[in-house]
Amino acid sequence: MPSYTAPVKDMQFLLHDVLKISEADIPGYGDLDQGFTAAVLEEAAEVASDILAPLNAVGDREGCVLENGFVRTPTGFKAAFDTMREGGWTALDAAPEYGGQGLPYLMHTAVNETFVSANMAFNMYQGLTHGACSAILVHGTDKQKQTWLPKMVSCEWTGTMNLTEPHCGTDLGIMRTKAEPQADGSYRITGQKIFISAGDHDMAENIVHLVLAKAPGGGEGTKGVSLFIVPKFLVNEDGSLGARNPVSVGKVEEKMGIHGNSTCVMNYDGATGWLLGDLHKGMKAMFTMMNEARLGVGLQGYAVAEAAYQNALAYAKDRLQGRAVTGVENPGGPADPLIVHPDIRRNLMEQKSFVEGARAFTFWGATLIDRHSRMHDEAADGLIGLLTPVLKGFLTDKGFDMSVQAQQVFGGHGYIEEWGMSQFARDARIAMIYEGANGVQALDLVGRKLATDGGKHVMAFFEMVKAEVKAPEGEARMAGFTEPLKAASKQLQQAGMFFMQNGMKNPNAALAGSYDFMHMMGHVCLGLMWTRMARAAYLALDAGAGDRSFYEAKIATGRFYMARQLPACGMHLARIETGADTVMALAAEAF
Amino acid sequence: MPSYTAPVKDMQFLLHDVLKISEADIPGYGDLDQGFTAAVLEEAAEVASDILAPLNAVGDREGCVLENGFVRTPTGFKAAFDTMREGGWTALDAAPEYGGQGLPYLMHTAVNETFVSANMAFNMYQGLTHGACSAILVHGTDKQKQTWLPKMVSCEWTGTMNLTEPHCGTDLGIMRTKAEPQADGSYRITGQKIFISAGDHDMAENIVHLVLAKAPGGGEGTKGVSLFIVPKFLVNEDGSLGARNPVSVGKVEEKMGIHGNSTCVMNYDGATGWLLGDLHKGMKAMFTMMNEARLGVGLQGYAVAEAAYQNALAYAKDRLQGRAVTGVENPGGPADPLIVHPDIRRNLMEQKSFVEGARAFTFWGATLIDRHSRMHDEAADGLIGLLTPVLKGFLTDKGFDMSVQAQQVFGGHGYIEEWGMSQFARDARIAMIYEGANGVQALDLVGRKLATDGGKHVMAFFEMVKAEVKAPEGEARMAGFTEPLKAASKQLQQAGMFFMQNGMKNPNAALAGSYDFMHMMGHVCLGLMWTRMARAAYLALDAGAGDRSFYEAKIATGRFYMARQLPACGMHLARIETGADTVMALAAEAF
Repeated sequence: MPSYTAPVKDMQFLLHDVLKISEADIPGYGDLDQGFTAAVLEEAAEVASDILAPLNAVGDREGCVLENGFVRTPTGFKAAFDTMREGGWTALDAAPEYGGQGLPYLMHTAVNETFVSANMAFNMYQGLTHGACSAILVHGTDKQKQTWLPKMVSCEWTGTMNLTEPHCGTDLGIMRTKAEPQADGSYRITGQKIFISAGDHDMAENIVHLVLAKAPGGGEGTKGVSLFIVPKFLVNEDGSLGARNPVSVGKVEEKMGIHGNSTCVMNYDGATGWLLGDLHKGMKAMFTMMNEARLGVGLQGYAVAEAAYQNALAYAKDRLQGRAVTGVENPGGPADPLIVHPDIRRNLMEQKSFVEGARAFTFWGATLIDRHSRMHDEAADGLIGLLTPVLKGFLTDKGFDMSVQAQQVFGGHGYIEEWGMSQFARDARIAMIYEGANGVQALDLVGRKLATDGGKHVMAFFEMVKAEVKAPEGEARMAGFTEPLKAASKQLQQAGMFFMQNGMKNPNAALAGSYDFMHMMGHVCLGLMWTRMARAAYLALDAGAGDRSFYEAKIATGRFYMARQLPACGMHLARIETGADTVMALAAEAF
Repeated sequence: MPSYTAPVKDMQFLLHDVLKISEADIPGYGDLDQGFTAAVLEEAAEVASDILAPLNAVGDREGCVLENGFVRTPTGFKAAFDTMREGGWTALDAAPEYGGQGLPYLMHTAVNETFVSANMAFNMYQGLTHGACSAILVHGTDKQKQTWLPKMVSCEWTGTMNLTEPHCGTDLGIMRTKAEPQADGSYRITGQKIFISAGDHDMAENIVHLVLAKAPGGGEGTKGVSLFIVPKFLVNEDGSLGARNPVSVGKVEEKMGIHGNSTCVMNYDGATGWLLGDLHKGMKAMFTMMNEARLGVGLQGYAVAEAAYQNALAYAKDRLQGRAVTGVENPGGPADPLIVHPDIRRNLMEQKSFVEGARAFTFWGATLIDRHSRMHDEAADGLIGLLTPVLKGFLTDKGFDMSVQAQQVFGGHGYIEEWGMSQFARDARIAMIYEGANGVQALDLVGRKLATDGGKHVMAFFEMVKAEVKAPEGEARMAGFTEPLKAASKQLQQAGMFFMQNGMKNPNAALAGSYDFMHMMGHVCLGLMWTRMARAAYLALDAGAGDRSFYEAKIATGRFYMARQLPACGMHLARIETGADTVMALAAEAF
């Protein structure tokens, strides 16, 4: 069975050496000193390794079962969920007035990574609740906040997002679920929603569904969509649970992975719901959940890859097979460990350099969110808006690829379920699909985000890269980072220029290159992160840091990423510059 | 449930327009006229669509079950296997003296593709038997051939390959299974073999295991390894079945995919076996099976992708979601079909151009095998030896990627098992692992095959590409093919040069780039195939072929591959030219 150890040291390096959070001007960051973050992360690490990780295979094997209309979660999930609740892990960054601990989103992100690595399917129950809380916090009335948030922050009640219907996922404008206004101000919700993660389960007293539906008078398409709070059990004035709302589970889906999470068909048969936010502005309210969810999904991408990598590395050190081509390295044994072989090492370095770069990217993204939510920094908000599709699309594509590569290290043992490597790949696969399939992320990036506010945010991004490449002048040891980053960033700008020059007369010329652009930008972001990490590592070494080999390994890992992974940018640019011609040449009927 | 239709027209195009088989000088090819191959392929297509494809999901769902020491295959498999046997499909290219139809390996390959696309797990039972027959045919004594081949050619008895042990897969030199010589000339085989595909099942009267084991006196490592025939039931002099041999199934593995095939732990407890081929030359005899198996696995890579693509295409035409950015295309419906969106089309074109290129590559490889086996063409043998790791490694990596991309077209519906797209991805995954994991293929290519016979074969390959790029002079319409092919081939040569210049003093400098080289060479091979296919399509159009849109689609699909996929070669070259430095920089303990 796979094991998992939270990478606390890597996280501390990011928080304190790279992001220097306790010196940051973001309210609340001043309290996050080395000792405090270490204490939180080490405690979270224990929960992850000792409680969540052992249930990962159990969840995969048993799955969720629909019995008499209710979903039963896998053995041990309920007790583990109680532990999470009791330890306050579900409420880390929630507002103190609703029972949260008020920590920055950054700390939630770091802790969340360890929980996702340990057990992605399990962590989704609280992850979706977190998103639903955010939507209620931003869009809810005072009364709604008081009714729902305290119980949801603690995860006594959990939340869901209900968007997809059988005939529509991306294109929510054609949804059919209806909301009819009632005399008491509530709505009657009728329709079917599918792919509802954590749609029902036995770990919470109540489940609070946030449901998109069409109320009368809103017009065609997404303009007619509103967001509603529809609980499994109605809540009485005194906060106690009342009648069962007519919302029921039609089916629990059989899936490729994340078996431990119940993916439900939800039937709303005149269920009572309450409008959340403005009428006919449901898409906006939903995006509050969605943007956060997309970052969370990007995190899933690399967090699962981290767990897979840890196990691949252990296997590569342990499994004896063949001899090093440069001379026997394990003369006492029948063969050398796999890790001596250059192609195994290439594989491991690709995993390691991706995961560490992705973590830096995600943590940095979390600081942008804190910067916006805690100090109303609109530039930070614009930047994270631009980066969100990259975080979601690139990190989940690569996270899956790396989980598959980790599986590959095991040879045939990676394919059988016994070793658990198949589960990482199967679980990671969903992250490329849900919360907007990655093609939709690419469309969002190229079709929308690049041009947002007149292209201000992407220009700010390029300025940031430029500054990183330059500063400080003349640092020759950084050339292995700054030069590839400069080249890749230039290629990315060239691609953006191609879109501008060609996209106006033929939007397809830009959109046909959107997926390549998303990946290219992902590489530039990770290149930027590695440049920052390498600089921080050099400074730590200059300052006589104790654990030299840790910092040297960071630099070596970064060098690998810059030398071996950034060349993908040239390929993506070449593809992009072929425009739409070959992509759109075939008529649909000629396929 | 997914459906499958054999691409008979595409196959006919390859056989007659591109490979021009009935004009070829290979013995037996003269009989393969358009009418004959169409008849065979259309009959195979029916078996594939009507009998095998409907059992694909059944096999995935039910799997193989070990009951009282015997393996039960999924519902319907036995009847389907009978149909395959009765139709002579298992014996298409087997020697007539053993009951085969004596057709070229090329015809076996084309028919095999349709069966694998329809049901990969099912087809493995006869696929492994095919490989075992080849080994017995080449290495067996007359008596062995007469005892085993007639029953195996007809698949009344099926075959297996027994190589892997719990502690060794790639490194067979450290195997522990023992063969002790007996007075009667037989051997007592004792040991445990794992991952034995089709190791036991209920569809054949007997199972003939070909088992690698160490007989006394052979020395250390693979030098001491010999190959043995070890049947499940001993065979009496009159050909009837005798006593049960002490070989038993220890376990049927739970796997990520190919659930319809029984992957067994086989225990040999003093089982009776007979030497096949020369004593202590087992590796050589095993490679007769292995090389053929590797081509068969490469075929699995693209054949599963073909099936996945067909279903993704149908879904993209059917599913209405969003509107074309260039203007509504389906004004009568609530939305346009997915296929109008440029990124969906990019995805589909990647699948289509890969599968068609891979099929051409594989069929061409099959002609090289026929050329060697039917006319002792050593150059053809050298070339297919060089190309085998590329066929296996590149086609299975890309075949898996494309199956994943096909799944992506379905969004959330791709992740639930109901639609069958998950199965394609899960099944395709094994092809990257078995018959030598793809890292081992890359090692074989760069560490061995490039230098075989003084590099003669790779030089011949480059000459072939050069000739294709040049001929016929001045054909401007081919520039979209010949120019990218020329550039990519030059990059491939440059990578080879880098290995020569650096690999002598540091073998790791070459091996660290082996995986990139394998992929680069794969792209050059598919580029070569597309150049040939485009030329053939233009010639057909010049000659006034009836179905112009078919040939025009070939050219358009090829243009996509050349423009959008060959740029990967530049990336691979850039990676290769960074050598081993960043790959090997970290000490194992610094990971």
